[in-house]
Amino acid sequence: MEVGFLGLGIMGKAMAANLLRHGFRVTVWNRTLSKCEELVAMGATVGETPAAVVAKCKYTIAMLSDPSAALSVVFDKDGVLEQIGEGKGYVDMSTVDAATSCKISEAVKQKGGAFVEAPVSGSKKPAEDGQLVILAAGDKALYDDMVPAFDVLGKRSFFLGEIGNGAKMKLVVNMIMGSMMNAFSEGLCLADKSGLSPQTLLDVLDLGAVANPMFKMKGPSMLQGSYNPAFPLKHQQKDMRLALSLGDETAVAMPVAAAANEAFKKARSLGLGDLDFSAVHEVLKGAGGSA
Amino acid sequence: MEVGFLGLGIMGKAMAANLLRHGFRVTVWNRTLSKCEELVAMGATVGETPAAVVAKCKYTIAMLSDPSAALSVVFDKDGVLEQIGEGKGYVDMSTVDAATSCKISEAVKQKGGAFVEAPVSGSKKPAEDGQLVILAAGDKALYDDMVPAFDVLGKRSFFLGEIGNGAKMKLVVNMIMGSMMNAFSEGLCLADKSGLSPQTLLDVLDLGAVANPMFKMKGPSMLQGSYNPAFPLKHQQKDMRLALSLGDETAVAMPVAAAANEAFKKARSLGLGDLDFSAVHEVLKGAGGSA
Amino acid sequence: MEVGFLGLGIMGKAMAANLLRHGFRVTVWNRTLSKCEELVAMGATVGETPAAVVAKCKYTIAMLSDPSAALSVVFDKDGVLEQIGEGKGYVDMSTVDAATSCKISEAVKQKGGAFVEAPVSGSKKPAEDGQLVILAAGDKALYDDMVPAFDVLGKRSFFLGEIGNGAKMKLVVNMIMGSMMNAFSEGLCLADKSGLSPQTLLDVLDLGAVANPMFKMKGPSMLQGSYNPAFPLKHQQKDMRLALSLGDETAVAMPVAAAANEAFKKARSLGLGDLDFSAVHEVLKGAGGSA
Amino acid sequence: MEVGFLGLGIMGKAMAANLLRHGFRVTVWNRTLSKCEELVAMGATVGETPAAVVAKCKYTIAMLSDPSAALSVVFDKDGVLEQIGEGKGYVDMSTVDAATSCKISEAVKQKGGAFVEAPVSGSKKPAEDGQLVILAAGDKALYDDMVPAFDVLGKRSFFLGEIGNGAKMKLVVNMIMGSMMNAFSEGLCLADKSGLSPQTLLDVLDLGAVANPMFKMKGPSMLQGSYNPAFPLKHQQKDMRLALSLGDETAVAMPVAAAANEAFKKARSLGLGDLDFSAVHEVLKGAGGSA
Repeated sequence: MEVGFLGLGIMGKAMAANLLRHGFRVTVWNRTLSKCEELVAMGATVGETPAAVVAKCKYTIAMLSDPSAALSVVFDKDGVLEQIGEGKGYVDMSTVDAATSCKISEAVKQKGGAFVEAPVSGSKKPAEDGQLVILAAGDKALYDDMVPAFDVLGKRSFFLGEIGNGAKMKLVVNMIMGSMMNAFSEGLCLADKSGLSPQTLLDVLDLGAVANPMFKMKGPSMLQGSYNPAFPLKHQQKDMRLALSLGDETAVAMPVAAAANEAFKKARSLGLGDLDFSAVHEVLKGAGGSA
Repeated sequence: MEVGFLGLGIMGKAMAANLLRHGFRVTVWNRTLSKCEELVAMGATVGETPAAVVAKCKYTIAMLSDPSAALSVVFDKDGVLEQIGEGKGYVDMSTVDAATSCKISEAVKQKGGAFVEAPVSGSKKPAEDGQLVILAAGDKALYDDMVPAFDVLGKRSFFLGEIGNGAKMKLVVNMIMGSMMNAFSEGLCLADKSGLSPQTLLDVLDLGAVANPMFKMKGPSMLQGSYNPAFPLKHQQKDMRLALSLGDETAVAMPVAAAANEAFKKARSLGLGDLDFSAVHEVLKGAGGSA
Repeated sequence: MEVGFLGLGIMGKAMAANLLRHGFRVTVWNRTLSKCEELVAMGATVGETPAAVVAKCKYTIAMLSDPSAALSVVFDKDGVLEQIGEGKGYVDMSTVDAATSCKISEAVKQKGGAFVEAPVSGSKKPAEDGQLVILAAGDKALYDDMVPAFDVLGKRSFFLGEIGNGAKMKLVVNMIMGSMMNAFSEGLCLADKSGLSPQTLLDVLDLGAVANPMFKMKGPSMLQGSYNPAFPLKHQQKDMRLALSLGDETAVAMPVAAAANEAFKKARSLGLGDLDFSAVHEVLKGAGGSA
Repeated sequence: MEVGFLGLGIMGKAMAANLLRHGFRVTVWNRTLSKCEELVAMGATVGETPAAVVAKCKYTIAMLSDPSAALSVVFDKDGVLEQIGEGKGYVDMSTVDAATSCKISEAVKQKGGAFVEAPVSGSKKPAEDGQLVILAAGDKALYDDMVPAFDVLGKRSFFLGEIGNGAKMKLVVNMIMGSMMNAFSEGLCLADKSGLSPQTLLDVLDLGAVANPMFKMKGPSMLQGSYNPAFPLKHQQKDMRLALSLGDETAVAMPVAAAANEAFKKARSLGLGDLDFSAVHEVLKGAGGSA
């Protein structure tokens, strides 16, 4: 199977390499073309522009850094739109908001092309290991065609229906994650102030019904007051806000998420927005806390 | 090693059997003595009364159904107190409140004996498999002596310091669990009302950073509106209340737990107290919901 | 002093009549011109179009039903913009969102005119009695010129600075009001379920430090489960949401408002959005409550 | 009408003086007897002990500083219990918890006497002006007999049913007050951070539907960060906790009160417990706030 691949950042490079390793013929493009060399050494062909890649390949995947890059690759001169059309498919795996995704979808469909949004859950390591979780939505036929590629890139892919549902699913998952982080932090503080060892609490939690990778990974650094940003708090709070907005539209009351959101806002007001979202622990610890 | 074992309910029988299988000499007692037969077949000796067991064994473990049974076995005629004393240890593994535990501890220590409270996390299956988690507190020397037995009964034991800390640790864990259940339910409702499949949300959650046994186990039955009581909602709400009280004593603000507690109270007011604690989902779904 | 007056609905007619009674010369316009007759009988002159009114008067006040009417009167053919310019002032007292207000402000200023937004607090009766509270913002010199008119229309006027601040002040006030309504409802429910008479609670509250017109007015009807919409719940919830958004922009944590907002959302999900905002009481009472 | 009066602190002296001014014959007692002189000058008689006062008077009122003084006057040597009996009534107007009140009630009734608890709302000034609000409960016949005295002491008295209801009614009122204080503080913070003048917000609030004495009295000092303790924050938080407990017993969900309670707890954790309850504003302002 032949695919185009636009964007060779940390994620994109790992993903394109995986496709090559599994026998896909891949035509790559990157804004800085020198980044293509490593993949050429693995057997990739280079396309001069996004348009050139789309011209050559029936299917093109993009993995770009943010919404503005995602739009630029499609709408700019020599962009995807110039060559997309009947019989061709475009799959954007970047993490973008629903509005950006809809805009690209409309434009591609107007040219007669097919579009799938497919944001992923997972970062560098899962990308290298082909262990991403892929949240796809849009054109079902194109999704079906892409399954062989998705099987290489991820441990699991989901087709979620209409455009925007990929972004929504991420919001719901991140909302649950943000509330859990607060519950976890409250528990660590309560243990500490009640004369229990927070470290022992981590050990007990890890053996029980609520054991999960996040507690295991974040707990020890939270106890040290170390919040190296894997997922910045301000982004987590933005996702809480967007999830609560989604609940507002559909009249779903979410009092726990609302309380968690206020704690994240408090953290932002204390200047913790650029730290990891686990830094909400500083808010809950309060003055002079040691948990 | 020789131990006494008081109480052969579902949990106690499985635990005593495990000790026998691992070469411990075990003297058992149960209020209904006929329940001892199965263990006698496995090599156990029978004690006529709790006092007789303590008289015979240096160490005695109890696993009783509730605080009143735990008190009765110690303070009644022919009870533990009549024979406990210097050089003997008593280990209560029943789930009781801190006050009950303290009362037993005081009485045993006054007689010169040593006491450890050791409530467990885990039910029938983990008890049979020797996979309990043991939250011990009290006399450290006695705890150390008991480690060989705890190694047989559980996958892990913790020594948590002074009497009462076992109960407190369970409260903290259950508080986190209760908040997580609310976050989970809110997410299921939001997915459903936003046009996403709640079943797919379960699948996505199970592949990510917050995957945990509780979501995996409770999610499918919650989507069916089925709440067979593994842990009754009224007990979960009581634990939330006690954890919030503990936070009140120590001035720890826990807004997410407080919001979750109010949802559990709402569930109680709707008559759901005897169902599983996951029935809080009915409150969050609201009228006519289908998630 | 001569003023133009656009919009003779319930509020506008009462306000224009007050100006006439206090010796102002008033030129009125209304989409349905027949509504002008009553004011002509009191001494008013009629303008054929908004543009005609502005052409004739140095100052023109508008009191329109909603944002779309407010925009139409300014931007449509024969609208305010055709005649506004240097030396003329336009004062919009309608309740509109900040975006609408900014749009009108920009357009008027570009023509060389001065603009003041001046939403009011108070409805029909205060309008008739000249007892409105006026929340003005925009051009300070124009505000100063308008003080004699504001003194007739309201018991108090405030100049709040830049355009948009009038709308923001209303949001803050309504947010406090919404939280108080929830606190009040929770108290009524607690009294009822605790064996106290909710009616007596109303009496006690009315004699104490938190006595306020809203409790006095809404309490008796809430106890009867009667929620005739003076201020629809869906509008109250919208204002809570907008106030929380404002707090999100400025990183102000507002946990009580957030909890209140979720209760209003719950009420919407139960189909109570078109009732009075005091209908949130139905949510808090829960199933089978009688308070 | 003849009454005994035990306790001549700030409140008690003002109340006894009011009774004398309205023609009651009053026999007074105070632990420090010299405090009786002022009232003797107004026509009071002195009783040597609580027992002596009860022996002389058909009705005895007590106004003591705290639960321990209230218990001491009844149960100690020469206390109320020694002379109370058939045909005599005892009215405790001190602010005590329900348990203290029940204990006194039981003891008085066992001797054949009648008992009314009658905590008041209002402090020194209302006591002097006969403007207290009296929350009475217990023996209805005794309450009826006391109405002439209550009419002199308060602007209004309520009979609330069984013993304990007076204390409960105060909890409900204080819970509403505590939630309102949080809503108020959140509004002041939001105004400040949104570029609105908090002082103007106070003025606007005072002209509207939620205007109340507490906002008027506390607002200006809160803006100055001045929290002279009229009602200490730790007592307000205790009342929130007790009200939430009452709601727990009766399964009333109170999410707004719960959120407010957590803010008060946070304030306690920051060492603000001895300041006025309006000091919760410091929590909501957060670091570096100026509202």
